[in-house]
Amino acid sequence: MAPPPSTAVSPIVSLLVRILTFVCLLISVIIILITNTYTQSSDFGDVKTKFTDFRAYRYLLGAIVIGLAYTLFQTALTIFLVSTGNRIGGDGMLQLDFYGDKVISYVLATGAAASFGMTQDLKTLVDRSDSGVDKFLSKADAATSLCLLGFLFAAISSIFSAFSLPKRA
Amino acid sequence: MAPPPSTAVSPIVSLLVRILTFVCLLISVIIILITNTYTQSSDFGDVKTKFTDFRAYRYLLGAIVIGLAYTLFQTALTIFLVSTGNRIGGDGMLQLDFYGDKVISYVLATGAAASFGMTQDLKTLVDRSDSGVDKFLSKADAATSLCLLGFLFAAISSIFSAFSLPKRA
Repeated sequence: MAPPPSTAVSPIVSLLVRILTFVCLLISVIIILITNTYTQSSDFGDVKTKFTDFRAYRYLLGAIVIGLAYTLFQTALTIFLVSTGNRIGGDGMLQLDFYGDKVISYVLATGAAASFGMTQDLKTLVDRSDSGVDKFLSKADAATSLCLLGFLFAAISSIFSAFSLPKRA
Repeated sequence: MAPPPSTAVSPIVSLLVRILTFVCLLISVIIILITNTYTQSSDFGDVKTKFTDFRAYRYLLGAIVIGLAYTLFQTALTIFLVSTGNRIGGDGMLQLDFYGDKVISYVLATGAAASFGMTQDLKTLVDRSDSGVDKFLSKADAATSLCLLGFLFAAISSIFSAFSLPKRA
């Protein structure tokens, strides 16, 4: 008897979700890296506040970078699967997908949550009449929202990889 | 041909993990609800800071309460399964377990992350020489750590319920 097909979800759908994850995370990291500093004039000269001055935002950045690396790796594997019909690594790889997707989706979820919590409470603590502060926080919100969206796609990938698990019982 | 057994993991192990999740979350919620206020004397009288004054901590509390309710429900179902050998709801319930466990583990992960991020950055922002503030933050850390531990057990439950999924392909 031939073994049952090893994927319950079409590789094309799986690939699409991976690409969406990657795009969300990429835009998010671009927002953080390129644009997010805030300079405030004070009596002691200009004080520059960077996104990475906050631990929660540093964690967000770390989570996104890890997510990007993993998603790029999985996207490459899925493109190989779609184009050749062969899965690199066979059933062992399905286990790796399952645990990898799970861990990465948790990493992205916690990154978005830490950053979102920070931004919400900063909004109540700082003077938002200063348009620079407001812009800084808006960009933090944008980066966080994109990470959250990336997490949702990663969670969908994680559901797909659970469906594809070889039956153990 | 008889259908394959519907659970890849022993119900006893599954029950144990649910109980551990429940205990962690219960202690965490007790720490938050009973003990965590902080009173500071000022020129305008006493200023009372409550755990729930912070949005990130409110989210933590909400996540834990949702986690507790869900875990209690699942523990009851698992006790029924262990004692009678019958699963309430059959295969449809396995799907519900899978999605439920997944969502709840994300809820707990984000709760812990939001709260942890908040506490870490508060530590850098506030005056920690005041022992009251320090105690407040230590208790926040304790509640967060227990939520994180609860999340880890919930994630294990989520892995178990993925193994138990009926094979779709």
